[in-house]
Amino acid sequence: MRARLLEATVDVLVERGFAGTSTTLVSERAGVSRGAQLHHFPTKNDLVVAAVEHLTERRGAELAQAVAALPAGGKRTRAVVTMLGDHFASPVFAAALELWVAARTDETLLAAVAPLEQRVGREAHRMTAAALGADESWPGVRELVQATLDLVRGLGLASTISDDSARRRRILHQWADVLDREMTRSR
Amino acid sequence: MRARLLEATVDVLVERGFAGTSTTLVSERAGVSRGAQLHHFPTKNDLVVAAVEHLTERRGAELAQAVAALPAGGKRTRAVVTMLGDHFASPVFAAALELWVAARTDETLLAAVAPLEQRVGREAHRMTAAALGADESWPGVRELVQATLDLVRGLGLASTISDDSARRRRILHQWADVLDREMTRSR
Repeated sequence: MRARLLEATVDVLVERGFAGTSTTLVSERAGVSRGAQLHHFPTKNDLVVAAVEHLTERRGAELAQAVAALPAGGKRTRAVVTMLGDHFASPVFAAALELWVAARTDETLLAAVAPLEQRVGREAHRMTAAALGADESWPGVRELVQATLDLVRGLGLASTISDDSARRRRILHQWADVLDREMTRSR
Repeated sequence: MRARLLEATVDVLVERGFAGTSTTLVSERAGVSRGAQLHHFPTKNDLVVAAVEHLTERRGAELAQAVAALPAGGKRTRAVVTMLGDHFASPVFAAALELWVAARTDETLLAAVAPLEQRVGREAHRMTAAALGADESWPGVRELVQATLDLVRGLGLASTISDDSARRRRILHQWADVLDREMTRSR
């Protein structure tokens, strides 16, 4: 029942935005009684933070598995950054975006979102560095891994108001080629 | 009076977010009568779209001037991307972000925001390519200019919930060095 509530919350966030999300709408969508919902998540903030955390971790784990299963070789970097780009253009990113933007002007929400964001950010960095086979002891490599994540975040934001998957693909292919050159430079 | 209303709208968007912005709050903040405000901007959507457009264009023009005035030479690329990064971490970006995210789930607002976003995006691209002295007839260079803008957008989004200006600077310096290498590669 908890998982059903969390999935329904993300669906409602994606469809209606943070302001349009209410605990009533979520219980209806999940087919869960108001009483049961309030028992698990007393407030809207509890519900949306738990939902974004749950889905981010589940989809992040799926992404990490998919990336780990990619074959080694010349096209690996392209495949990794393309998968990352698709992940940040998915509905889970839209739900997280709703939460981040609402937290910007809501101190109570920010207190819950900031540590979640830090944890998720560290995990995404660790996963990306491993997937790219990036040796972060080399000068500048750590910053390139960070830049890769900030780039897909920016592309994800752009994708929320225009469908630009062809543009995204061209940019990410080019960036993958640059990453390959940079990560092997002067070794 | 129009400019005062638009500046006040951006201030209220930054402080309270899209959901917390009302035409009443804006008229109070601007010291403009409700009647005069309604005469200029009949609806909240008219007001917020005009405000983000006005401020984006004004600050964009200021940025273009500042960038054009930078000296040529070895550190120019770093200076350009640092200025871009600061621009996308400013309150005007936060106001635009509020508008974009609200437009994602509001068709009427999206119809006004999508063409504005396209126009601003094209202008930002043109300005950035010129500032970097990027020759976009070379394969891959156009995509790197686009990636630079998506990167600063992603960094701007991150900066709305955590103050990470030192991290941003390190990433942008590294990015600038990569741009310099890539833009002169195999010429």
